[in-house]
Amino acid sequence: MSAPIIAIDAMGGDFGPHCIVPASLSCLAESPSLHLVLVGQSSLLEQLVAQQSGVDRSRLKIVDAPEIIGMAERPAQALRGKPRSSMRIALEQVRDGKANACVSAGNTGALMALARQVLRTLPGIDRPAMVTALPTQADPCLLLDLGANVDCPPEQLFQFAVMGAVAAESLGRQQPRVALLNVGTEEIKGNQQVKQAALLLQQAADLNYQGFIEGDGLYRGEADVVVCDGFVGNILLKSSEGLAGMLVARVEALFKRSLGARIVGAVVLPLLRRLRADLNPAQYNGASFLGLQGIVVKSHGSAGADGFKAAIRRAAQDVEHDLPEQLRSRLGHFLRPPHPYDDVDDVTAGGGQPSN
Amino acid sequence: MSAPIIAIDAMGGDFGPHCIVPASLSCLAESPSLHLVLVGQSSLLEQLVAQQSGVDRSRLKIVDAPEIIGMAERPAQALRGKPRSSMRIALEQVRDGKANACVSAGNTGALMALARQVLRTLPGIDRPAMVTALPTQADPCLLLDLGANVDCPPEQLFQFAVMGAVAAESLGRQQPRVALLNVGTEEIKGNQQVKQAALLLQQAADLNYQGFIEGDGLYRGEADVVVCDGFVGNILLKSSEGLAGMLVARVEALFKRSLGARIVGAVVLPLLRRLRADLNPAQYNGASFLGLQGIVVKSHGSAGADGFKAAIRRAAQDVEHDLPEQLRSRLGHFLRPPHPYDDVDDVTAGGGQPSN
Repeated sequence: MSAPIIAIDAMGGDFGPHCIVPASLSCLAESPSLHLVLVGQSSLLEQLVAQQSGVDRSRLKIVDAPEIIGMAERPAQALRGKPRSSMRIALEQVRDGKANACVSAGNTGALMALARQVLRTLPGIDRPAMVTALPTQADPCLLLDLGANVDCPPEQLFQFAVMGAVAAESLGRQQPRVALLNVGTEEIKGNQQVKQAALLLQQAADLNYQGFIEGDGLYRGEADVVVCDGFVGNILLKSSEGLAGMLVARVEALFKRSLGARIVGAVVLPLLRRLRADLNPAQYNGASFLGLQGIVVKSHGSAGADGFKAAIRRAAQDVEHDLPEQLRSRLGHFLRPPHPYDDVDDVTAGGGQPSN
Repeated sequence: MSAPIIAIDAMGGDFGPHCIVPASLSCLAESPSLHLVLVGQSSLLEQLVAQQSGVDRSRLKIVDAPEIIGMAERPAQALRGKPRSSMRIALEQVRDGKANACVSAGNTGALMALARQVLRTLPGIDRPAMVTALPTQADPCLLLDLGANVDCPPEQLFQFAVMGAVAAESLGRQQPRVALLNVGTEEIKGNQQVKQAALLLQQAADLNYQGFIEGDGLYRGEADVVVCDGFVGNILLKSSEGLAGMLVARVEALFKRSLGARIVGAVVLPLLRRLRADLNPAQYNGASFLGLQGIVVKSHGSAGADGFKAAIRRAAQDVEHDLPEQLRSRLGHFLRPPHPYDDVDDVTAGGGQPSN
């Protein structure tokens, strides 16, 4: 795809259009082939665009959407109560072929619900999952789900594993190693969802399933795809962001305290700035929804301008890889479903046990 | 308590007695008031002790236990099949008043099951929780449960919150801020257990309950006690260890690549060693079981000698604070139970919703 058209829900997120519009326009200026559709209250958006200089209006369209979905609003309300929300209309741009992807920093639950309603899921997929790439000691690792589904039955974890594998292939990984996130690597560990998902994955001959992985194995780069429910994935992601921020701050403090100002100024601080950029969560911002008949990228609600730009770039990359089409053509291959619970009586019987 | 006696399950963990015995003796040498009881296959333990020089045998006892519980063994087997395991006999030392605390690096599920059977839980507590202190940008934060309970009903999360608050008070915190780990801070977020636990905590007037917290808030130091189920807590803990290791390795690589060898050798590496020590998971090793009628500390199964020593020190500290007695005397105050589900129809009704 040489000229991706990205529809932007310009009203979502903690910072709203005053952050999203300048970020979008900066991305537009940096990517000569990019086209954007800003969706939201058009008079406000026009004003915000007018404040920027040198905007290439030939690659920018504004589409009016008078309603806004609040960050704490219930998804049901977003689905039924607001037919003209910026989020819905941005998604409809994709459905109607007017855009190749949609980016929103809005309410995750509402985005999930609306995306399913407007774009629908791919055949064989019950619910979409959110995925992102985390840095590891080796290659980046795809982690899913990141919060779109707080509770996941085993069949969903299985579908996430398949979608993750296809996404990793589209990034050039051969036979991507797939693992289930768990509290131990032995078979007896974990809760029932994880144990049963493991049985499904063991039967999927075409999947390079490696078994259970722990949180430290993920960061050692022991898998290309790590699967978990959205509650766990979201907490892993957010705590990693928090810890990375704390550690970089400590490194900086350590050097500021301990070295002469000259060395610090001349040598160390530029290096730390590079490190901070390397580890900046904003750089990894943007989670793709996998399993929809269209491309949707969720930006962190609290992402600043740099984070939102990263989400737009991720959407453009997903358009280039034509991820939904890759999934559509490969899913059938993987999803010849094993028949789940034929041989698993002994596992279900162990349900009341404590962790091991 | 001036002379704590710690019973050591010398056979547990990934490295077993060849790591645990030297680590224990090193701790003994460093702490002149400490007494240890090494529990395990006595002929082997005697041999390993004889290999060390200068051991103060007046503060060391060896108790024979011929059986070993494997790291992947089912808890039920440990409970019923092995009456003379090192883990059980170490716990019995505490029950029988021969030791003030027990430390084990063995199978977590087996330790949990045996500890409940041998020591029993405190009145009002259904199941013990594992707790440790995590470093944050402000003061350390107590996180529980860390893996003793993979599935937790809301009442258990409530009990964990109460025990965490008492433990934080025993560390000198006034009115410790208690928060529930969740995928968002708005009321509509999360799975059913978390939402219902929140309702219980809101009704506990004597608890300084702050509401939901996300993983990044934990590392910003926004709470003194963070509560979650053992599946989530274990994954948060392990992924944090993995990420910290990766980041320190990256900092080192960055400096080695970018600075001349002389500067690196003379100035930077000593600082990095200090940082690595600050962040070393071994330093934070050792999770206390809260809610038992006795002190039990779980060391990481893969902890090396330094990590095991940290676990022994944690046990000695718990003895000093007399944590079970603190809990016993304070629990009644907090556990005047709210009547859980009187007013929560609307929340349960929302059960089918996706995350928000």
